[in-house]
Amino acid sequence: VSGGEVFAVVLDHTAPERWDAVLAVAEEVNGIRRPVVRGDAWAAISVGDGVREIPVERLRALDSVQRVVAVGTPYCLANRDVVGSWGFVTLGPGAQDGRAEDTIVGDGAPVVIAAAMQGGPAADRFPHLAAQLSEAGVAILHAGEFSGDESRDPSTVGRAGLERLREQAAEAGMALSVEVSDSNHIARVQDVVDVVQAGSRTMQDFSLLRALGASERPVLLKRGTGATVEEFLLAAEYVLMGGNGRVMLCESGIRTFDAADRPRFEINAIPLLKRATHLPVLADPSHTATSSAALPAVVRGAVAAGADGVVLSVGSRMPRYGPSATIDVAHLRHLRAGIDAVARAVGRRGHPHRPSSVA
Amino acid sequence: VSGGEVFAVVLDHTAPERWDAVLAVAEEVNGIRRPVVRGDAWAAISVGDGVREIPVERLRALDSVQRVVAVGTPYCLANRDVVGSWGFVTLGPGAQDGRAEDTIVGDGAPVVIAAAMQGGPAADRFPHLAAQLSEAGVAILHAGEFSGDESRDPSTVGRAGLERLREQAAEAGMALSVEVSDSNHIARVQDVVDVVQAGSRTMQDFSLLRALGASERPVLLKRGTGATVEEFLLAAEYVLMGGNGRVMLCESGIRTFDAADRPRFEINAIPLLKRATHLPVLADPSHTATSSAALPAVVRGAVAAGADGVVLSVGSRMPRYGPSATIDVAHLRHLRAGIDAVARAVGRRGHPHRPSSVA
Amino acid sequence: VSGGEVFAVVLDHTAPERWDAVLAVAEEVNGIRRPVVRGDAWAAISVGDGVREIPVERLRALDSVQRVVAVGTPYCLANRDVVGSWGFVTLGPGAQDGRAEDTIVGDGAPVVIAAAMQGGPAADRFPHLAAQLSEAGVAILHAGEFSGDESRDPSTVGRAGLERLREQAAEAGMALSVEVSDSNHIARVQDVVDVVQAGSRTMQDFSLLRALGASERPVLLKRGTGATVEEFLLAAEYVLMGGNGRVMLCESGIRTFDAADRPRFEINAIPLLKRATHLPVLADPSHTATSSAALPAVVRGAVAAGADGVVLSVGSRMPRYGPSATIDVAHLRHLRAGIDAVARAVGRRGHPHRPSSVA
Amino acid sequence: VSGGEVFAVVLDHTAPERWDAVLAVAEEVNGIRRPVVRGDAWAAISVGDGVREIPVERLRALDSVQRVVAVGTPYCLANRDVVGSWGFVTLGPGAQDGRAEDTIVGDGAPVVIAAAMQGGPAADRFPHLAAQLSEAGVAILHAGEFSGDESRDPSTVGRAGLERLREQAAEAGMALSVEVSDSNHIARVQDVVDVVQAGSRTMQDFSLLRALGASERPVLLKRGTGATVEEFLLAAEYVLMGGNGRVMLCESGIRTFDAADRPRFEINAIPLLKRATHLPVLADPSHTATSSAALPAVVRGAVAAGADGVVLSVGSRMPRYGPSATIDVAHLRHLRAGIDAVARAVGRRGHPHRPSSVA
Repeated sequence: VSGGEVFAVVLDHTAPERWDAVLAVAEEVNGIRRPVVRGDAWAAISVGDGVREIPVERLRALDSVQRVVAVGTPYCLANRDVVGSWGFVTLGPGAQDGRAEDTIVGDGAPVVIAAAMQGGPAADRFPHLAAQLSEAGVAILHAGEFSGDESRDPSTVGRAGLERLREQAAEAGMALSVEVSDSNHIARVQDVVDVVQAGSRTMQDFSLLRALGASERPVLLKRGTGATVEEFLLAAEYVLMGGNGRVMLCESGIRTFDAADRPRFEINAIPLLKRATHLPVLADPSHTATSSAALPAVVRGAVAAGADGVVLSVGSRMPRYGPSATIDVAHLRHLRAGIDAVARAVGRRGHPHRPSSVA
Repeated sequence: VSGGEVFAVVLDHTAPERWDAVLAVAEEVNGIRRPVVRGDAWAAISVGDGVREIPVERLRALDSVQRVVAVGTPYCLANRDVVGSWGFVTLGPGAQDGRAEDTIVGDGAPVVIAAAMQGGPAADRFPHLAAQLSEAGVAILHAGEFSGDESRDPSTVGRAGLERLREQAAEAGMALSVEVSDSNHIARVQDVVDVVQAGSRTMQDFSLLRALGASERPVLLKRGTGATVEEFLLAAEYVLMGGNGRVMLCESGIRTFDAADRPRFEINAIPLLKRATHLPVLADPSHTATSSAALPAVVRGAVAAGADGVVLSVGSRMPRYGPSATIDVAHLRHLRAGIDAVARAVGRRGHPHRPSSVA
Repeated sequence: VSGGEVFAVVLDHTAPERWDAVLAVAEEVNGIRRPVVRGDAWAAISVGDGVREIPVERLRALDSVQRVVAVGTPYCLANRDVVGSWGFVTLGPGAQDGRAEDTIVGDGAPVVIAAAMQGGPAADRFPHLAAQLSEAGVAILHAGEFSGDESRDPSTVGRAGLERLREQAAEAGMALSVEVSDSNHIARVQDVVDVVQAGSRTMQDFSLLRALGASERPVLLKRGTGATVEEFLLAAEYVLMGGNGRVMLCESGIRTFDAADRPRFEINAIPLLKRATHLPVLADPSHTATSSAALPAVVRGAVAAGADGVVLSVGSRMPRYGPSATIDVAHLRHLRAGIDAVARAVGRRGHPHRPSSVA
Repeated sequence: VSGGEVFAVVLDHTAPERWDAVLAVAEEVNGIRRPVVRGDAWAAISVGDGVREIPVERLRALDSVQRVVAVGTPYCLANRDVVGSWGFVTLGPGAQDGRAEDTIVGDGAPVVIAAAMQGGPAADRFPHLAAQLSEAGVAILHAGEFSGDESRDPSTVGRAGLERLREQAAEAGMALSVEVSDSNHIARVQDVVDVVQAGSRTMQDFSLLRALGASERPVLLKRGTGATVEEFLLAAEYVLMGGNGRVMLCESGIRTFDAADRPRFEINAIPLLKRATHLPVLADPSHTATSSAALPAVVRGAVAAGADGVVLSVGSRMPRYGPSATIDVAHLRHLRAGIDAVARAVGRRGHPHRPSSVA
């Protein structure tokens, strides 16, 4: 019996039918019923509250318990030691409808590209854009921010828009993601998208994090521009604690004293996060460079530093200076080649050719 | 006649004997004699003080004037338009003693590695280190900080130490650099080193910048941890104004609100600087990562973003946590391979094999 | 007819029965029904979306329209020009149950002291604390963070705890506030407290801001440690847009590169905010100083710079170093005297003596 | 015998003729001759280098040794325990020429006002300005930045200008200060000024700090906008180590992520410094506020937080937005009244009436 610590109890994720005994002990110790957190190839439950004694040996002896890990960090289930290595997250459309075209983000997988369409659902206005993006190597189509009332703000996307994008993304073999900034909206999007994203301003919106934890959709969590790396991990832990282990982190720049070119991409965060957690780490430097000309250098840097994927703002026209550096589809193909080359240089596969139609 | 601006008058650098007429007009306009600033394959003089009228056409008509550039930035001779492309700086030992082994830093040249020996002149204590470093691909041996009185501070290097390192570096085919923090010390080091470095704390030490501008040695100027990119360029301009055009910039991280892992490497600065200036840009992330394990990721990221070289702290032992992340010679070889691979992936040559003896 | 701007239409707040014509025009122009925002001695509605033409003269001609203000800032109703001077917010218990003991925060009123009880509802454990605080000049009792399930986290307060504090605060003549971090919890607290607070981490939790805008309770909005002054004002605007004009701002420190003593109190924000907005501005430096000994200096500085009130962490014991600098009741009396002296020195009244019982 | 520490040996400052024995022991232990550092009412020498054993009891037994203090901070002689309380620094003209009109800055003295003349030696152009400033309560006339060649930059002051200001300041009973940014210039100004100032950009210019330490003039050291409080104290220590104990610190704002109104005044630094050091602490918020209207609030805040003096930028015209917030003489009188009121409120004397002529 050890006391006063928090432990991650790692379970045999292939056999949930044998978890009952563990759940019973965990509830007894925690004084509350916590869910088993399920990732793509792992499952774990946190036991302990920093005060009570933990019957570590009794837990270890239980059938289906693989390891009991004393994490020693303020975050528990996000700790790399829970998985013991870097992990991955599987996205649809395959993940959703049983087809084979799953996109895998994380360890062992190629560097993925997510394309955020600047200024709302451009793919809706440009039906061929989805196919073009897919051909250019984009694996995740990001629909922008969900609006409860899309008629009000043309830069957001509503339910009807998401449904049309769902079709286009599926047709082109891409996963679909959407940003949600209101916890009540998750129920309105989760059946139609593959990833739900929390933006950098809402990284510490605890209602939203709770709702994401209760969802079954993979989550992309962006770091707040004023949040430390540790707070970023604690926000991820908050989602995990709700039971959803399929969380991807996205470093997207922090504010510094030098405002000359807006936030700065925080490249140190990539190795820091890869050392700290098993969760995949993506990079979105779009808001850290005022010019589309400077963006590729930072994107390549992020991939060289170990990012599992990059998020790019794509537009049919390329504003030289704007709220974020966007690139057009033609430049995207060129940047993809650069990303692939750097990915291979650091020992990763580039992303595979993806046919625009899956028929 | 145009008025109120500052112009860079670009001269035929191969024919200094024909500069007199330009110098006469420049002095007449400037009201003061400014030196021609000489780089490796360029020469220019700034004309104007933002107030007086400038006889642009008269200057253009002069023999030996190649271009008259209205720069439009607070810095003038550092502006990329002065050279019209990225430039380079040539270092010894070849540059110094007429041998062929010059090291070129900048455009068109391989990514160079400078090795800063942690805790003083380790190469002095370990005579084979210089040869090992050279074999591992190090082109510049950084002797550490010069001390007027080395007996007082064993972590600094004095004149005698520099002379011994000079021999070892020459033997191994490496250029030698030293950091100077007192303007009066430059005269005591410049005949024995190939590069004089100003550290990040002294980036705005104007006496030092003036003295570096009056020196004939190439200069490595590190960005202050609290300085903006524009201030960094203005500090370089201050050196240039003294006549010394062989300035290399070194991005080495800035302070942010997140102190978890000390300063952060400012990767955005690399494309920002490459767009703004012709001066070569190196990267030193040593002080931005607490662990030697995290360092390589940031180094590779800097190269992928376009750095012309990297500065690494090398020690025979590898402290896990310390004032800077150091690597040992064995890891250096491995990191060199990673740097070369990334450099090739972004279209640069890796650094060439360098024989440990040049005999 | 002016076009493309956003206007604040200031209404006669004493005659809501005459607002219908204005609301009709506003809805016609806005294309959506926006609420009239009601403050303590003002009412206004924003008209325009930056695109449509605004019939300014037609609005001006309407009965009950006092002024039509072209604000010229990204925030509209928070702009100081809407009220034309600094404003105030009236809190209960008087405001709530019709008694005379209203607390006024803002222009013309004494500097108020809010006491945040460190580590949960100390007043619940110490029944005499409320009376002592009131005697020491505290006008607002801050109950800490509301928990949906108080049994889980003893540092939070639940509905039952709030009800007991409600009695104690009323007895002692103090207003009661609580922090809410989940938008769904506002309905569970607003009938029992006088102020609902949004903490610094949730300053950009838009569901929460929307719910606060729909509430009738005065709101205390804390600046995020990574948020700019403009973002702070935009978050306040978001609450106002929901119809609730009784918003108080609380500057509580920002993160800087100097982590030696945690965040820094941002004293410049006080005159910046007082110039920008009519909303009252409080100061909470508790998290910006590690020691209780350093706290009074910053508190006095905030009052000298024009703060309308201060928030202090009060505990029965005084930890020297902890998550926030707390003071005990004895020191509170001393600090109150200092606050009063400085308040008078800058031309404000100190806070009045407040009897512990109002019977 | 204690070992491995650094001690401040506090001497009887009234009896330098009895210091020889202490100096002998100190040199024996330090292995180098360090000067006795002399302040206004204290003298001390640091003994130890963190490695050698220190004969503490032997030192304590020496005649003229008052105390041997184990400081426990990276800075030694700047540690508050050396003086045991807050100290003060006495400035001329009395200090210089034996007259009675010394200005005292620091503990027990009124809050002093230093007036920095914006855009060069305005007092030179406006002969009555010095008298007006003195009447308005200014105790220190700051001449601006010294230039080795004043003809080149009209915003700087040369030797001739300083001499004229010397007369005007003496006439008006004010001390005179000048900023020096080149260590070689100190010899050219120190006989004519009462204070030599190091600006925020040169806070870590070690040649300059060394030269200031060797000077007999009181020093005003400004905090760098990117320097931590600890680095600020270490820079002061560097001056002290040269023998000059009359150092005043000046907090003048730090850079933060919020660039809306340039640097932010760092009010927390005032109690932090007052707790850490005996050196007087001034405040210069001029560069932290874009508008003259916002400046007084921050000035009053600094005084309420404990500043021993304030530095103001004074101009005959008042630019609304510019490189620093300046005030004109008429507003200065009003601000002086506010400073005095706040100073009294926090238990300090205001600055005394100072006759414009001392005849």
